[in-house]
Amino acid sequence: MTSPLRIGVAGLGTVGVGVLQILEGHAGLLADRAGRPLVAAAVSARERNRDRGVDLSAVRWYDDPTAMAADPEIDVVVEAIGGSDGVARAVCEQAIASGKSVVTANKALLALHGEGLARAAEAKGVSLAYEAAVAGGIPIIKGLRDGLAANRVSTVFGILNGTCNYILTEMRDSGREFGEVLADAQRLGYAEADPSFDVDGVDAAHKLTLLAGLAFNGLADFDTLHVEGIRHVSALDIAFADELGYRIKLLGIAHRLAEGVELRVHPCMVPAGAPIAMVEGVFNAVVAKGDFVGEVMMVGPGAGRGPTASAIVADLVDLARGFAAPTLGTPARGLERLVPVPMDRRRGAYYVRLMVVDRPGVIADVTRLLRDEDISMESFLQHGRAPGDAVPVVMTTHETAEAAMRRALEAIGALDAVLEPPRMIRIETLAA
Amino acid sequence: MTSPLRIGVAGLGTVGVGVLQILEGHAGLLADRAGRPLVAAAVSARERNRDRGVDLSAVRWYDDPTAMAADPEIDVVVEAIGGSDGVARAVCEQAIASGKSVVTANKALLALHGEGLARAAEAKGVSLAYEAAVAGGIPIIKGLRDGLAANRVSTVFGILNGTCNYILTEMRDSGREFGEVLADAQRLGYAEADPSFDVDGVDAAHKLTLLAGLAFNGLADFDTLHVEGIRHVSALDIAFADELGYRIKLLGIAHRLAEGVELRVHPCMVPAGAPIAMVEGVFNAVVAKGDFVGEVMMVGPGAGRGPTASAIVADLVDLARGFAAPTLGTPARGLERLVPVPMDRRRGAYYVRLMVVDRPGVIADVTRLLRDEDISMESFLQHGRAPGDAVPVVMTTHETAEAAMRRALEAIGALDAVLEPPRMIRIETLAA
Repeated sequence: MTSPLRIGVAGLGTVGVGVLQILEGHAGLLADRAGRPLVAAAVSARERNRDRGVDLSAVRWYDDPTAMAADPEIDVVVEAIGGSDGVARAVCEQAIASGKSVVTANKALLALHGEGLARAAEAKGVSLAYEAAVAGGIPIIKGLRDGLAANRVSTVFGILNGTCNYILTEMRDSGREFGEVLADAQRLGYAEADPSFDVDGVDAAHKLTLLAGLAFNGLADFDTLHVEGIRHVSALDIAFADELGYRIKLLGIAHRLAEGVELRVHPCMVPAGAPIAMVEGVFNAVVAKGDFVGEVMMVGPGAGRGPTASAIVADLVDLARGFAAPTLGTPARGLERLVPVPMDRRRGAYYVRLMVVDRPGVIADVTRLLRDEDISMESFLQHGRAPGDAVPVVMTTHETAEAAMRRALEAIGALDAVLEPPRMIRIETLAA
Repeated sequence: MTSPLRIGVAGLGTVGVGVLQILEGHAGLLADRAGRPLVAAAVSARERNRDRGVDLSAVRWYDDPTAMAADPEIDVVVEAIGGSDGVARAVCEQAIASGKSVVTANKALLALHGEGLARAAEAKGVSLAYEAAVAGGIPIIKGLRDGLAANRVSTVFGILNGTCNYILTEMRDSGREFGEVLADAQRLGYAEADPSFDVDGVDAAHKLTLLAGLAFNGLADFDTLHVEGIRHVSALDIAFADELGYRIKLLGIAHRLAEGVELRVHPCMVPAGAPIAMVEGVFNAVVAKGDFVGEVMMVGPGAGRGPTASAIVADLVDLARGFAAPTLGTPARGLERLVPVPMDRRRGAYYVRLMVVDRPGVIADVTRLLRDEDISMESFLQHGRAPGDAVPVVMTTHETAEAAMRRALEAIGALDAVLEPPRMIRIETLAA
């Protein structure tokens, strides 16, 4: 098969243009590697007459990307529009309906509508590829689908959002608070004007849904994920974490248990010596545990034009070579729905920070409420004294159940001497 | 295509049995993922009547693995015999000649005879797969070949030998010398009775040859590699490295320059904060730099039954799915021979340790000889005094050329007051 793979690129923002740059700049290299040329045959974007730094003179232009997706002279559509619905979804559906494979970086679309798209692709015998949708340039989708194909995967977790990791790293390096660092990140282009998708954990949760589906060969319902972001992590927590030998990371965790699957995104304290604790700034990292391979970690740039386009073009090379694997690793018709384990059932250790009035008896009250829930304390920290004033105190617990922890925190929060809602961060030792 | 992939396993040692265990234990999972069953159809080993803990009753037995490799009822041969020549080579050649794909973990065979095997496989239209040959369970071959296929790779380097990394880690943790830790490693099964392949860097060099071939889509001649092992690394060097903010790692480095390719295996000092510095014990790690993706690192178990078998079976899943890519990423007929850059041309910083008589003027002589070669010193360490006795002194240099460094070390070694041959370790800042 030496006829060119004819590619239509829908959306010419950062990512779409990056794809065109690689196709143009590495045309020879890609043809050698794929065994046939990869050719940008058509593009679609909103504004035709903007200079994007790539030569579009030999490429068909479409104002309507959905019309492009039906073009019989195109073999595969790269969806680089974004958004979980609307045009992006219509383009993917049209492409599949027209018998074309789809390559996308759109985690929101796939997390919410991936099942339907996967079934449609399977029915049409085309591929739905999404290496770029998770962890940017890190080839984790192929890593799980192909590289670890011999394993039953028990756990996959990682740093899936570079914006959050950048903010947490900066907070630690500078001692500043979340809001200030976020504002900086926005100025530097590491965070969006509306940062909520990133900092509230939604983006990481989209990616976790895809990882879990692939790792466990099942269908994860996005709605069942437990999702917390990093807005409540304070400079104080980061300093205490350091003192206790931990780093705070926003992790997405998919963990298979006998009774179902834990799927959760939240700030975690991980041991400072754990490899994943050392992944800093905008980098992403994913750890997978397989029953034969053990633990494998992949680290790399989680976003940006180059890494995202690299992942998309890798999918195009797969398609050009004729590599076709089911969207979630096994045929969609045989996939089971993953049974979510409620967050209340999580077992593990906890970090708790309280702002209390510094007076005799307060800690006795707090520890009694923990004991009432059978929670045993592992460490306790209070620095300095301020009799009669507010002071932060920090505790870590031994392993306990989340439900017990929540009840205890509610009771503790109701104490007169406890001046703010208690802050809790889960301690995760599963982190590689 | 739903007919089974019929597999013949040549060699039933640790790895061969591991492959059979996965094929048996994950039969359903693998069939789902590959779209067809993967079946162990035949095996061959020296001793038939040994209990290996796997059921061989339904599997054809061959005393002669080369005869098995010609069996028309087999689609693919797993070569798990080992050794760069002899039976292993004959089995692979026979399998390819009989139109079967080959899966092997045999880096020695591929580093020395890979070119011929790759050409033969290509001529016959079969695959030569070797995910398990480099970095054990880490899917780095697929990572480079598929995951980073959109990139021109400029550098690939890593910790490629778990035995050496284990020994270096143990030396640092315990303060003990190489010989002692090696003996322990042999007792624990982390080192062979004859450890020279590992500790002299040969095994890492075999793997580096394969990585370079794939990363650069070229043919690397094993004979042209610069290879040093870790026998000369002393507890003293490790302690000084710590003090200077470095870790000592045996790295394999493939680095593309305008004039050719650096291919070298030697102990390196890497910054203690670099991600690769934190890869400890028997773990392996590989870093690749691509022009679009940036830097990606993969970490995982570098050896052992489970990880090696995991990688082999991943290759079998590829074959069952019909994934076939050229052995070195592009067709063998178009591969260029990589031009080696002589080691003398290496530019970088150096760590030098001398054992000198502690008397006035010695350091002046040493620094004069460095200056004569235009080498500028970055730091100098001497702890304590022992007038008239032998003391270790340590220097690090700014960037200089290896040739100049060698001339300087020769002249320094010839000084009366220098009691032992100078020890030199290269400082590598390219390490991620």
